[in-house]
Amino acid sequence: MTERYHIDANLEKPGQSAFLDDEESHHFLRVMRGRPGDTIEIFGHGHRFSAEVLEAKKNQPVEITLLQKLPTPEPMPITICCVIPWIRGGKSETLVQKLTELGIQHIILFHSKRETAHGGEAKLSRLRRIAIEACKQCGRNELPIIHESENLKLALETIVAPSDSRLILYENERTLNLTTALKKIPLNPTAPLLLASGPEGGFSPDEVAAVSEIATSVTLGPLILRAETAPLVAASATLALAGRF
Amino acid sequence: MTERYHIDANLEKPGQSAFLDDEESHHFLRVMRGRPGDTIEIFGHGHRFSAEVLEAKKNQPVEITLLQKLPTPEPMPITICCVIPWIRGGKSETLVQKLTELGIQHIILFHSKRETAHGGEAKLSRLRRIAIEACKQCGRNELPIIHESENLKLALETIVAPSDSRLILYENERTLNLTTALKKIPLNPTAPLLLASGPEGGFSPDEVAAVSEIATSVTLGPLILRAETAPLVAASATLALAGRF
Repeated sequence: MTERYHIDANLEKPGQSAFLDDEESHHFLRVMRGRPGDTIEIFGHGHRFSAEVLEAKKNQPVEITLLQKLPTPEPMPITICCVIPWIRGGKSETLVQKLTELGIQHIILFHSKRETAHGGEAKLSRLRRIAIEACKQCGRNELPIIHESENLKLALETIVAPSDSRLILYENERTLNLTTALKKIPLNPTAPLLLASGPEGGFSPDEVAAVSEIATSVTLGPLILRAETAPLVAASATLALAGRF
Repeated sequence: MTERYHIDANLEKPGQSAFLDDEESHHFLRVMRGRPGDTIEIFGHGHRFSAEVLEAKKNQPVEITLLQKLPTPEPMPITICCVIPWIRGGKSETLVQKLTELGIQHIILFHSKRETAHGGEAKLSRLRRIAIEACKQCGRNELPIIHESENLKLALETIVAPSDSRLILYENERTLNLTTALKKIPLNPTAPLLLASGPEGGFSPDEVAAVSEIATSVTLGPLILRAETAPLVAASATLALAGRF
């Protein structure tokens, strides 16, 4: 695969010129040892172009001109928002990487009652960087929207959806399977689905009680999945049912 | 959850006595600072018992007696064998942990043409240890069977199955979706399903050609999943279709 660079702008047509941001410029110049005249691939906001490098000087943003629009993968059959806790030990980072590969459009990190990991703007920037790298590698052309919420309830309220499209993966739920719940709701791009999962040690009962009016608890089966496993399993199950693969 | 200890034996009825192995004995004595008379939980070969510790002396196997049979989670609706490459950087280890949590019954590590990671008996022992720890944490009561194969073809031949129940997640396959393939075959415990995935960089065309008679290539969608992501996504999708969650 040609080296791919992200540009956070609407890439519209051949001939348009644009600049790589500092990190991407650094990567082109210092890591890839690129030069003016090189052909690279540019992606962003769902588009993908081949491009020629016009200017590339140390400590300056690299300037490119779009050459040709390139085909993009088929769009996702459903809009998914994964609501995940901050987890220690780099696990939120790994999760964001994997959810990006899967095509998940929204990722909300929330502060869970049983988890002491810190969030914050610097960490969010790092997650966005991880998402860019994952997009480069998997061939995705638009970044997931990643943000932070103070608690589970606020996280769930970020996106308007009926309570049966806001699913909580809750280990104390014994009856309603994820897939049973999914079969009762529309799975398409215009009906966003929220999948919320808990920290190591699980959601506190308070936390789940506080969202009982606006969300539905489901089970992921009789075995207890780790905090960093459950979101990926739930997203994969949902995409399977929605016909993504 | 009570501290859980694995015993590699058929646990049959209350009153039976047994010994923990060296690692589990060490864990009981030195990590948990356990003593004779303590009540612990024992699992193995699909069974689960409460047990009382009879003898617990430094550098000796801990002896226990079974007290009461405990309920076990509902069995898997399908038998899955994940065929995964050795991957560097601890990624095979993470995968074995997560596949164990999912309940996957067989895991075969193979040497892929494009991957230079080494396997071997010491690494397999380490993977089995990781599987025991995962079982303790997720509530599973029988270990996955983990072994090693020289190449993809031998790995696939380990388990007798028709070619449409041996699925290769192949990035050059563009047409046949995993879920479309799954809908054409029986999904139940007596019809084992093999899910084989490639290393970083993907299967070599040779490798896939060599199994074209005995297996079926499928796609996991238009985005390229990492070597350590694809098996987990495929297993989750399969379990969703088989009604596990």
